[in-house]
Amino acid sequence: MTSPTYSLYPVLAQIQDCPSVMIPLNDDWSLPGTFTQQINRANCKLTFLVNPHAPSGKLFDTETLSTIASELNSVLLIDEAYVDFVDVNYDSIPLVCDNDNVIILRTLSKGYSLAGLRFGYGIGAEPLIKPMLDKTRDSYNLDLIGQQIAEAAISNRNYAMENCQKVANERNKLSESLLELGLASEASQTNFLLVTIPAEFVCTAKQLYEELKVRGILIRYFAEEKLANKVRISIGLPQQNKTLVDAVKSLQL
Amino acid sequence: MTSPTYSLYPVLAQIQDCPSVMIPLNDDWSLPGTFTQQINRANCKLTFLVNPHAPSGKLFDTETLSTIASELNSVLLIDEAYVDFVDVNYDSIPLVCDNDNVIILRTLSKGYSLAGLRFGYGIGAEPLIKPMLDKTRDSYNLDLIGQQIAEAAISNRNYAMENCQKVANERNKLSESLLELGLASEASQTNFLLVTIPAEFVCTAKQLYEELKVRGILIRYFAEEKLANKVRISIGLPQQNKTLVDAVKSLQL
Repeated sequence: MTSPTYSLYPVLAQIQDCPSVMIPLNDDWSLPGTFTQQINRANCKLTFLVNPHAPSGKLFDTETLSTIASELNSVLLIDEAYVDFVDVNYDSIPLVCDNDNVIILRTLSKGYSLAGLRFGYGIGAEPLIKPMLDKTRDSYNLDLIGQQIAEAAISNRNYAMENCQKVANERNKLSESLLELGLASEASQTNFLLVTIPAEFVCTAKQLYEELKVRGILIRYFAEEKLANKVRISIGLPQQNKTLVDAVKSLQL
Repeated sequence: MTSPTYSLYPVLAQIQDCPSVMIPLNDDWSLPGTFTQQINRANCKLTFLVNPHAPSGKLFDTETLSTIASELNSVLLIDEAYVDFVDVNYDSIPLVCDNDNVIILRTLSKGYSLAGLRFGYGIGAEPLIKPMLDKTRDSYNLDLIGQQIAEAAISNRNYAMENCQKVANERNKLSESLLELGLASEASQTNFLLVTIPAEFVCTAKQLYEELKVRGILIRYFAEEKLANKVRISIGLPQQNKTLVDAVKSLQL
């Protein structure tokens, strides 16, 4: 997997006593040119890519993914938790059609605003998916009401996509407001912003996290070297975003 | 684990590549006197007992369980899926208080009539439970609506127990009706009957399963030597139980 990545992956690997290989991203959050070689050399069996990437919000393009899939000796799992917020041309389904080693994971937790439902699904070529269905799938993995809610949600995709568009608009507005306060963020294709706290700011990233927490605003701080001067801010409702911006302003007074 | 036992356990062990030891029950479904010695000798780490037992419907008493728990070198998992249908004096909670190696599993699928909810819980001493909570518990194991339904169900235990009593009454009636047709069943403390098809009956157990299936009635047949002349019949609504009895009668004409 990449470093950084979705923080639960290393934890899950550890629970399974599974050794894992972390490959640092470049400073611009792009993949190092030797990504596949490093993974193949380590004989990994499963490769995780979060796309759009968390916590940077960056999207890897399908050409890059296609090259990786064809060069990897392992299964490539693409976690598309945030894919519904992508506002450029991106379609990963051909990757599944062209490569037997690609599995795409999606969730209703983000784009469909159903975080409480815990509903996700995978897309992969039949030779990859079939053994999971026949041999290792949990017999009791979804409750009936969850299935029905998920069906209803998926069958009204337009409603979800309108909400995603609203979140994307708010994301762009919040990004501009924070920039006016001296806080630049990465270009994001997700429902969050990775914001850099510059050395000359009134407080550090960690202090910002703590100050906002006291005010009832939860943002994410990562205790990792590469992310030490950054925070991740999820896009809220317009009023919530305004409350955040006002709180940051009040710290600067 | 015992043989027979809940049929998913050997399957789950296989999925995890975990070797398992099956210890045959006595002909009256009681535990062999050497049960704990056999398990300790095989160095098992986890021992499964289903109580009341599936598919026999028999209840192991707490004295037996207490002796096993104190003699075992492993964790004793007692699966109480059917415990709400027990109509004799049985309280397993002291086992958890007295033994750090006992975990009790319960579900709302049977006694609370919530099979579609997939909600279960475990009860164990803190030293046993705490590492599971801290280290290996799935972060996303229950959806919000499921949690709320489960809370509502558990807080109205009387309603569930009234339904269990109805099922137990129907169970006893069905057992008598089948006996009149020549089909004896084990004394059951669950919501099902294990019924023996005698050699002189009009058909074998497997044929009975198939004949009823054609008529839209699903009962359980086990392709195992010890259960080859038996079927397991879940208790239905009064009308459903009558339909079953009528169907068996029609086969005998």
